[in-house]
Amino acid sequence: MSTRAGIVITGTEVLTGRVSDRNGPWLAERLRELGVDLAYTAIVGDRQEDMEAALRFMSEQHMDVILTSGGLGPTADDMTAAVVGRFLGREMVLDPALKERIAEIVAPLAKRWPNVDLDAIRIANEKQATIPAGATVLEPVGTAPGLVVPPGEPSGGPTVVVLPGPPRELQPMWSQAMSTDALRAALRNATSYSQQTLRLFGIPESEIAETLRVAVSEGVELDRLEVTTCLKRGEVEVVTRFEPDAADTYRSFVDVVRRRHPEALFSDDGSTVDQQVAGQLRGASHTIATAESCTGGLLAARLTDLAGASHYMKGAIVAYSDEVKVAQAGVAPELIADHGAVSQEVADALAAGARERLAATVGVGVTGVAGPGGGSEEKPVGLVWLSVDAGEGHRLTRSVNLPGARVDVRERATTVAMHLIRRVLSDL
Amino acid sequence: MSTRAGIVITGTEVLTGRVSDRNGPWLAERLRELGVDLAYTAIVGDRQEDMEAALRFMSEQHMDVILTSGGLGPTADDMTAAVVGRFLGREMVLDPALKERIAEIVAPLAKRWPNVDLDAIRIANEKQATIPAGATVLEPVGTAPGLVVPPGEPSGGPTVVVLPGPPRELQPMWSQAMSTDALRAALRNATSYSQQTLRLFGIPESEIAETLRVAVSEGVELDRLEVTTCLKRGEVEVVTRFEPDAADTYRSFVDVVRRRHPEALFSDDGSTVDQQVAGQLRGASHTIATAESCTGGLLAARLTDLAGASHYMKGAIVAYSDEVKVAQAGVAPELIADHGAVSQEVADALAAGARERLAATVGVGVTGVAGPGGGSEEKPVGLVWLSVDAGEGHRLTRSVNLPGARVDVRERATTVAMHLIRRVLSDL
Repeated sequence: MSTRAGIVITGTEVLTGRVSDRNGPWLAERLRELGVDLAYTAIVGDRQEDMEAALRFMSEQHMDVILTSGGLGPTADDMTAAVVGRFLGREMVLDPALKERIAEIVAPLAKRWPNVDLDAIRIANEKQATIPAGATVLEPVGTAPGLVVPPGEPSGGPTVVVLPGPPRELQPMWSQAMSTDALRAALRNATSYSQQTLRLFGIPESEIAETLRVAVSEGVELDRLEVTTCLKRGEVEVVTRFEPDAADTYRSFVDVVRRRHPEALFSDDGSTVDQQVAGQLRGASHTIATAESCTGGLLAARLTDLAGASHYMKGAIVAYSDEVKVAQAGVAPELIADHGAVSQEVADALAAGARERLAATVGVGVTGVAGPGGGSEEKPVGLVWLSVDAGEGHRLTRSVNLPGARVDVRERATTVAMHLIRRVLSDL
Repeated sequence: MSTRAGIVITGTEVLTGRVSDRNGPWLAERLRELGVDLAYTAIVGDRQEDMEAALRFMSEQHMDVILTSGGLGPTADDMTAAVVGRFLGREMVLDPALKERIAEIVAPLAKRWPNVDLDAIRIANEKQATIPAGATVLEPVGTAPGLVVPPGEPSGGPTVVVLPGPPRELQPMWSQAMSTDALRAALRNATSYSQQTLRLFGIPESEIAETLRVAVSEGVELDRLEVTTCLKRGEVEVVTRFEPDAADTYRSFVDVVRRRHPEALFSDDGSTVDQQVAGQLRGASHTIATAESCTGGLLAARLTDLAGASHYMKGAIVAYSDEVKVAQAGVAPELIADHGAVSQEVADALAAGARERLAATVGVGVTGVAGPGGGSEEKPVGLVWLSVDAGEGHRLTRSVNLPGARVDVRERATTVAMHLIRRVLSDL
């Protein structure tokens, strides 16, 4: 039987959507690596009864492990430790040594925030050092300690790992948790799964549904694979999870996908188009620069997102106004006058301008109507012209009509740009 | 008694974190406006038994309304309608008129994707038009219809609103759902709450905890307010929810916050620093431009995020390499040689360069060490220099040491920049 886990994300700010959760996805990935089957992620507000009901539900669904994030802060609405203690039938006790360690950690705060209230810090300390009896303490990365709390009854029940909300505290603390005997015991039966990802660009999701049917008709035992497909920023992602002895089945499935979608399939090893473009640029010692209008710097931000970007990224001109397109990106004013700022000609001129002005081997130009205003019958909201220029006639220019709101159009446009860059670089 | 709701987000791609959920937060906000009390958001994979268990849990927790998102697509792992039908004890029936309408919608696909398989589309059609008996159909925005499914038994139970996964389909469909008799009936007892947001910048969260204690000691009846605080991109956000007759109590609470944090409190009307800066720029007909190194265009992307940005945003120079800092942003090479690229002098030169080269009234310079590499003892990862230059001596330059990973440092730096811009603009 596989090991099952649930995640409980706490915090009214997350439940109400004011803060987006990064911990659920990150912990999900860690569980996958361990071969643990994640069944649910529940988001609950800062209300004790709701949090307890979520823990009970997970327990009734036979979870071996429950991970919680958040609710370890200094304010009264942070009460995860107490709720978990009660849920597992464990008394709350002050750990004096832990209180001391937290006091040492927060001492420098008094210097950094000169008007800080020391009483407030002391009360917060004491609260954060009060933990369920029998729990293993995970040393604070920020000021809040984490906890591994073993099942309340000898008869079983879940082990609860209590982690803080800030991702940069949670992540190192998870490694600590993994080295505790309590968590190791809870995970001892985990079986390892394989997970593989295919990525495709330029086909609708219904095509993949048909490919799955074709695979079955050709005798691929798809019931041995757990295949999920989704559209993600304009790409189709096919993720397959399987037990190790179904590896041959997976290979047969991939063969069918590759045969039916030879152009669209751009990744069969989980790599993203961002990673592939970074690899292409570094591998061939190319440099890149962008001149962007509607994306407003998003493409440059994406190209500098990966560590090591300084090896290939020269920079960008965000030419939001027409005068900047002319003065900085070198677009001829008559091109804008004759064809409009959103046009093939201006996209090409932006690409060439980025390439020349920023002395890069590859230049990218993006110009479009992100909306909500500014659209016309001829040039509706969502129309984006993109150009990738690698010099000496290596140029690819495309227009796309992207659906959705301003934020979608801007983001999708960067994805299309990444794929055009990839294509141009592979042809060099 | 208040009306309670739960949200069930379906999709293995969301559960495993490959796609981040935007629907939960959006629907949470809609429920709040209606005075409906959201108790849980559950994320479940594409497994029928897990989805059903989540629906049962919500029902046991006395939800009046359950909203689901996702699982209405054409592939076999999309099965929300069938699971909801079974959960509510309703037979699944093919709606021929709906099938016809879906067929009309997808017909143009055959043109857009020339190699598309028509059989695949027909099978998908039929699946998407098979719905629980008695459900009200919400017309498709993409290809998938939504549903409002009334309680299965006359004795009660939840009304389930079935919505598609893509946000741009879900959002218009929600308005449709709100006009159905079935959903109106389920929401008839909702009481209206007020929700107000305060935002502070430049203080730690523990200070707010102390302010809450001070408010209580001064007689503010905080138990009439549901106050939640959180750190969000370096700001402290204080959201308070209360019944209409507690409005005076809320005002007293705000008075205490304002008295204790006059500098830090920058918003008491829910406005973000982005909206305030946009308002300042438009109000005074200022224009802005950035020259960014470590943020790689993120600040420009943020300044162009709001509709209408073309009124004030000139553009940006993403000066990732030193040669671009010199050639495009006009930074004197000796400044870089003498002080290093991450320095007060270079930040000031970037700000001045952005302002002059892009002919803006306000220029912003950002240069720092985003990591993970590139840090030194003197200039560690997380050190960022920022400069905002509005000409004629109106200049503000600051350095900050930002915690976290590359992505955190880059994002936090844009927040600090927005606050510096706000400060300079209010002093003009």
